[in-house]
Amino acid sequence: MSSKRSERRKHAGYGSKAGMSPGTMIFIGEQQVENARIDIIRYDVSTLSEMGDVSPDQCRDCSAAPGVTWINVNGIHNVALIESLGKHFDIHPLTLEDIVNTSQRPKVEEFPNYVYAVLKMMVYDEGADRLEIEHVSLIFGENYVISFQEHEGDVFDSVRERIRNAKGRIRSMKADFLAYALMDAAVDNYFLALERIGDRIENMDDRILAHPEPGDIQDVHHLKLEILSFRKAVWPLREEVGALEKSETVLIRPETRVFLRDLYDHIIQVIDMVETFRDILGGIHDTYLSSVSNRMNEIMKVLTIISTIFIPMTFIAGVYGMNFEHMPELKWPFGYYLAWAVMLMVAFSLLFFFKRRKWF
Amino acid sequence: MSSKRSERRKHAGYGSKAGMSPGTMIFIGEQQVENARIDIIRYDVSTLSEMGDVSPDQCRDCSAAPGVTWINVNGIHNVALIESLGKHFDIHPLTLEDIVNTSQRPKVEEFPNYVYAVLKMMVYDEGADRLEIEHVSLIFGENYVISFQEHEGDVFDSVRERIRNAKGRIRSMKADFLAYALMDAAVDNYFLALERIGDRIENMDDRILAHPEPGDIQDVHHLKLEILSFRKAVWPLREEVGALEKSETVLIRPETRVFLRDLYDHIIQVIDMVETFRDILGGIHDTYLSSVSNRMNEIMKVLTIISTIFIPMTFIAGVYGMNFEHMPELKWPFGYYLAWAVMLMVAFSLLFFFKRRKWF
Amino acid sequence: MSSKRSERRKHAGYGSKAGMSPGTMIFIGEQQVENARIDIIRYDVSTLSEMGDVSPDQCRDCSAAPGVTWINVNGIHNVALIESLGKHFDIHPLTLEDIVNTSQRPKVEEFPNYVYAVLKMMVYDEGADRLEIEHVSLIFGENYVISFQEHEGDVFDSVRERIRNAKGRIRSMKADFLAYALMDAAVDNYFLALERIGDRIENMDDRILAHPEPGDIQDVHHLKLEILSFRKAVWPLREEVGALEKSETVLIRPETRVFLRDLYDHIIQVIDMVETFRDILGGIHDTYLSSVSNRMNEIMKVLTIISTIFIPMTFIAGVYGMNFEHMPELKWPFGYYLAWAVMLMVAFSLLFFFKRRKWF
Amino acid sequence: MSSKRSERRKHAGYGSKAGMSPGTMIFIGEQQVENARIDIIRYDVSTLSEMGDVSPDQCRDCSAAPGVTWINVNGIHNVALIESLGKHFDIHPLTLEDIVNTSQRPKVEEFPNYVYAVLKMMVYDEGADRLEIEHVSLIFGENYVISFQEHEGDVFDSVRERIRNAKGRIRSMKADFLAYALMDAAVDNYFLALERIGDRIENMDDRILAHPEPGDIQDVHHLKLEILSFRKAVWPLREEVGALEKSETVLIRPETRVFLRDLYDHIIQVIDMVETFRDILGGIHDTYLSSVSNRMNEIMKVLTIISTIFIPMTFIAGVYGMNFEHMPELKWPFGYYLAWAVMLMVAFSLLFFFKRRKWF
Amino acid sequence: MSSKRSERRKHAGYGSKAGMSPGTMIFIGEQQVENARIDIIRYDVSTLSEMGDVSPDQCRDCSAAPGVTWINVNGIHNVALIESLGKHFDIHPLTLEDIVNTSQRPKVEEFPNYVYAVLKMMVYDEGADRLEIEHVSLIFGENYVISFQEHEGDVFDSVRERIRNAKGRIRSMKADFLAYALMDAAVDNYFLALERIGDRIENMDDRILAHPEPGDIQDVHHLKLEILSFRKAVWPLREEVGALEKSETVLIRPETRVFLRDLYDHIIQVIDMVETFRDILGGIHDTYLSSVSNRMNEIMKVLTIISTIFIPMTFIAGVYGMNFEHMPELKWPFGYYLAWAVMLMVAFSLLFFFKRRKWF
Repeated sequence: MSSKRSERRKHAGYGSKAGMSPGTMIFIGEQQVENARIDIIRYDVSTLSEMGDVSPDQCRDCSAAPGVTWINVNGIHNVALIESLGKHFDIHPLTLEDIVNTSQRPKVEEFPNYVYAVLKMMVYDEGADRLEIEHVSLIFGENYVISFQEHEGDVFDSVRERIRNAKGRIRSMKADFLAYALMDAAVDNYFLALERIGDRIENMDDRILAHPEPGDIQDVHHLKLEILSFRKAVWPLREEVGALEKSETVLIRPETRVFLRDLYDHIIQVIDMVETFRDILGGIHDTYLSSVSNRMNEIMKVLTIISTIFIPMTFIAGVYGMNFEHMPELKWPFGYYLAWAVMLMVAFSLLFFFKRRKWF
Repeated sequence: MSSKRSERRKHAGYGSKAGMSPGTMIFIGEQQVENARIDIIRYDVSTLSEMGDVSPDQCRDCSAAPGVTWINVNGIHNVALIESLGKHFDIHPLTLEDIVNTSQRPKVEEFPNYVYAVLKMMVYDEGADRLEIEHVSLIFGENYVISFQEHEGDVFDSVRERIRNAKGRIRSMKADFLAYALMDAAVDNYFLALERIGDRIENMDDRILAHPEPGDIQDVHHLKLEILSFRKAVWPLREEVGALEKSETVLIRPETRVFLRDLYDHIIQVIDMVETFRDILGGIHDTYLSSVSNRMNEIMKVLTIISTIFIPMTFIAGVYGMNFEHMPELKWPFGYYLAWAVMLMVAFSLLFFFKRRKWF
Repeated sequence: MSSKRSERRKHAGYGSKAGMSPGTMIFIGEQQVENARIDIIRYDVSTLSEMGDVSPDQCRDCSAAPGVTWINVNGIHNVALIESLGKHFDIHPLTLEDIVNTSQRPKVEEFPNYVYAVLKMMVYDEGADRLEIEHVSLIFGENYVISFQEHEGDVFDSVRERIRNAKGRIRSMKADFLAYALMDAAVDNYFLALERIGDRIENMDDRILAHPEPGDIQDVHHLKLEILSFRKAVWPLREEVGALEKSETVLIRPETRVFLRDLYDHIIQVIDMVETFRDILGGIHDTYLSSVSNRMNEIMKVLTIISTIFIPMTFIAGVYGMNFEHMPELKWPFGYYLAWAVMLMVAFSLLFFFKRRKWF
Repeated sequence: MSSKRSERRKHAGYGSKAGMSPGTMIFIGEQQVENARIDIIRYDVSTLSEMGDVSPDQCRDCSAAPGVTWINVNGIHNVALIESLGKHFDIHPLTLEDIVNTSQRPKVEEFPNYVYAVLKMMVYDEGADRLEIEHVSLIFGENYVISFQEHEGDVFDSVRERIRNAKGRIRSMKADFLAYALMDAAVDNYFLALERIGDRIENMDDRILAHPEPGDIQDVHHLKLEILSFRKAVWPLREEVGALEKSETVLIRPETRVFLRDLYDHIIQVIDMVETFRDILGGIHDTYLSSVSNRMNEIMKVLTIISTIFIPMTFIAGVYGMNFEHMPELKWPFGYYLAWAVMLMVAFSLLFFFKRRKWF
Repeated sequence: MSSKRSERRKHAGYGSKAGMSPGTMIFIGEQQVENARIDIIRYDVSTLSEMGDVSPDQCRDCSAAPGVTWINVNGIHNVALIESLGKHFDIHPLTLEDIVNTSQRPKVEEFPNYVYAVLKMMVYDEGADRLEIEHVSLIFGENYVISFQEHEGDVFDSVRERIRNAKGRIRSMKADFLAYALMDAAVDNYFLALERIGDRIENMDDRILAHPEPGDIQDVHHLKLEILSFRKAVWPLREEVGALEKSETVLIRPETRVFLRDLYDHIIQVIDMVETFRDILGGIHDTYLSSVSNRMNEIMKVLTIISTIFIPMTFIAGVYGMNFEHMPELKWPFGYYLAWAVMLMVAFSLLFFFKRRKWF
């Protein structure tokens, strides 16, 4: 239920925007209480500096600074903040609109002075036992990357650590590689979310096999919708990252392209897993239906067999309950026992007949 | 029912056109009683003039006037009026035919002197609780836009307001941007209609879960058909707007193209939502079937259990209703109570057996 | 049944052709008794002449005559006649083979000296209540059009009238426009046939909703097959007319191309309607199944409820039909009435229980 | 069963080839007892010579002989024979491997000195009542055609006759036309096989409608698989013949290309028929399921109605079988007849109630 | 169950990699206990040398050695070993990452100095009765091929033998042909695995036909998933090998391309077989459902028929069990026998009625 509702809420939000001028920034999404926060990391091969919780104006001259500057913005509900950042980096109003519109689907757009990428972050909320989809935007130019997240998250921490520890090639590469590294971190995170979904599917499979219950069919459907929303978040990425790899923009250096191809590969792998999950869920659905129907059949069969055995016996009892004056059997000394014998014989014949036909 | 009928009526209308010369303007659609009405707004960055309810001849020299002229025509059933407009702006007869043909599907066509776009407006009729699809045409040239609507509607009001208030960039842009803004207003309106459909789907889902009724399956199908008609109205737009963005016509300026890409994006988002609704409806359909079948199974099971418990008891009663002369039990002082005991024992054994197997 | 049979008959016909030399003209289709007949209309902007029931040899010099010559052939079973026409206009043997082969699917082929188009005419046979598919071929060169029909039909009458009355632009255009006009008349006719199918679908829907009957499922399937055959007749046209519009042949003048685009549009609209009908039929199919199953469930439920109420009562009656010597209740003065009271109480408790659970 | 088994046998055969060097000729297919046999026909416009049962070495100088030489090989299990032919005509080892591999799918491959085409011949085995699929290979160069068949068949007889009788254009054309004529003969033969399948489908339809039987569902599935194997044999041809028509090889003369287009057309027609059969079979499947379910419902309904009518009557009889001392009705002179009256009234009321509700 | 679990385990493994620097080599797969092992074969037309269990450093100068060097690595869990090989041959870190990542899907990537191909080896594990999927990587440059396998396997043995015995053309060709030969050996092996699956499908089909059991539906689903995983392993190969054949890399010689086309052909054949298996499984699924339902229907029908026959008889016995004082039949001398006669007559009438309607 919940995933459908939250989906609807967002659309409602979007609908409320109808009639606005294009390029109007309206935050669409669940309202946040946290403060928005900007953090800056600036590095090159040899130097590294970090600034926490800066004001937008402190970012003004970042695009001209030497080395690579990574500006991370947590909290896209602060429209004013993002607008002022947008001015400093000469971001197109439509891009700014998309940054704060959490219902924007994944895409990559090239502008003359920057590349804009929309991603969805998949976080499995263990408490609510459902997938949270977070809207993430990346903007990168010649020597800066700006990342926008809905909440403070830890998905980008691994990249932060690699920069701090000068691990791998990241410190010796440019902004395009940092952008790639962030996208890669997000996609790597998909695998974690998929694992959790995989666990749920497996639990569901085991449970439904053991004793299927009426509500299970809905659980299967909700999981299907969750996987569909996952699919919708990943599917467009495939095409977009593929296009980025082949794009002619000078903002992406040749040595980064091979990494984009690798990212593309990972995305296809995610899609493959998602499709596999869909197939498995389809199988569980069929198993459930077949299992419910088998169980029901079993019950009805046993009940009907019981009835069918007693009905002829009752008939025989009924016969000797008749009040005819001339019923010789009634006078036989062992008539009663014979009647029992006949009744039991009938019952056992039927049982034997059913058994031989493997009806139970 | 209603949506299918109205669909059919339109086709009937179209069929009646068979045998006409191509380019013959025949209004196809439900007959209107309102008068057709033309309104003109002319603006540039600094000036703005409005004229209400003008005659077609007053539009004669619009294509040569300075600034941007927006001619809005409400009521496409007035064929003569549209024909005379067509002459003033040198519109191809086939275009005029499409303007008055409400069964024309969405498309964008480029002519040497203008671009012609067909859209469908989605208005959710709260009274009839169904989607009304309105046929909207847009023609734009160098410095004019002509929009044709079936009824007076308020979808374009937001654009009108933005022009009057000089809000956003609209006053400083040309006719192509106005045409884009009108298309964008229509597409934005789709989200509102989708929200209403989403509400209906959610209500339906809740209702069906609580107690499914025989007629529900048809409601689901009618909603499916409604969503299909939505889909058919939006799907062709995708390709057409995509083509327009990449088109080589000089009537679309480079600075407008990025907005068309944004419009394209919104259309894809609408399609995504429509597909999601289709998936959810598919799930509701399955839930309904499964729910009906579960309920029925439950009823039959309980009924059969009741019968199955009483049939063996009836048999025992039948046994002691037999009239054999030698039936020792009948003479036992506690025979009757024993018989009850046996019968109850049988009943409780069966109940216990069914319970243990979790049959109820 | 009938539509499948007639389909098969044609294939049988085709099969009988196996082993013939390619280009061998064998009439494939239902044998006709009418005579084949050739009619000629020749016109330009100012003049018009008609000749009825001419011999093939009278067409010999048509391709060199001034103005546009339209040769209409009714009855393609006269192979000799078509062959001699073919010689006069230098038609490729394979084209002649296709003209008389009624199982040829729609296509458009360009030859150096003419363009050949195969269409299917859809005529709804009111008597047999089914769709008749007629094979129509068009050949047009620089200044002549030859149309081949299976029977005399009235679909082209509207074009004939427009030529006679010099209505629209037809008299001022060339042979390519006449060919377009004929194709357009055929496609316009599809809408009429679709309307009739739409009526049948609606009737079927209403009937099935009111009281579904076992045979309905087959009616739905036959209608589905009919729609599929419609689809197969229209679908290839789309691609072929699209290709014709973009083709480089000099036989099609630029001013005709915009009309071909319009024709293309109409074909897509026909396909859209066909797809809608498929969806509606799918819905009717589901409704039928669900309706049959609901009805059956209802019946079985009521029957089982009746049995379930009487079985416990019968048990109680059985108890007091036992012949134990010591059954105190039997001696109670109001025992009999009490027994009735208990039995009725049991019956009403069950009824109340079933009612409260909304089982009926 | 049989078709699946034979499919599997071939694969088994193929599997046994795993680990061989590519280009290794291993006959894969059912082992043949007939001897392989080579027949040669050589012709040009004016001359014709035939040689029966020649040795491979007699074909050595065929590629240089004047006119067109058609070498027909019956029996591809003779690997040595085919290998020596391959040497004379300079055939690539991979082509030779494909010639003897009956599980090779249809394809057309161009080599510098020849074109290689794989076809499947469809022969309906009247005895076994199933489709036999035969592997046929064609190789044609400048002035020779080599055809390879599994068995001696009569499909190519029609071409042979046309050559002998100098019927049609075949004697005046080159090797490419002969190759086309052979392919065309094979495709024409598909129509015959489809007719037989069509007959079986119709018989099945009639039979299932009259009285569906449990085994029918499998017959439907086997027919489906047969049609699928047909489809698989034809589908790749479409693309390959389309490619051949557009290919740039000099081995195909321009005047032959229009015939290849015609062949392409026929293949599409075969595919169309195959798809139609699939749709019809789908309909039969649904009809069967619906028919079985209707029949079962009917039976259960009637049985339950009978029980439901007698159970209340039995209850009433039970009531007056009770042994209470004070049961006034028992003493009434017409009590017994009244009881019968009440019982019959109950029965007829129920019957009337069921009838009015149209339950039977 | 098992196949799903093992799939999940791998993903879990992959997920654990989230947050690593791209290019980080982490072995993903089931942990191996065997030691990794490198074997080298070096050959040209006339010479051949083999070295077993060498160290990575012994491979250092292989890329410069004359002839073709084939380095086979068994055991990709030894990351250090692969890394040092990677350095010797200048392999890109992302390639090294993919070599040890067993969840990498099949692909072919061209690098300036080598071509990298990922395959899946299909080995049917007879013990566990399920398909084992092994990750295989191939790297080939100008004159060397490196193959990486998870376990020591015998799939490549056939190639090894052909090199040793100088069988076929392998010794006279270059590294590209060796790489092709290895891929071909793997694909040939697919046919063996498919045969085993085909056997299982056939067994399943026979078993389900004979007596369907509740668990069968799951077996069908597991087989479906196995076939899907097969499909996923083969499907990407099609496109990749097709691209390789048409690629412009100089590492692939023209004479090898025709073999790649043959390989492509084999892959399509594998896909065809996989699709056929899917269709057959779909048929088995339907057969199972229909068979279970038929069996259940049969049982319920017989049980209900038995009840339906005895219920009217019981009613008649009940009637003559009534205690009315005036029941003339009770005094008739042959009343009792008449009652039996009536009861039996009723029973046989019903039986006859049911029989005539072919209800059993």
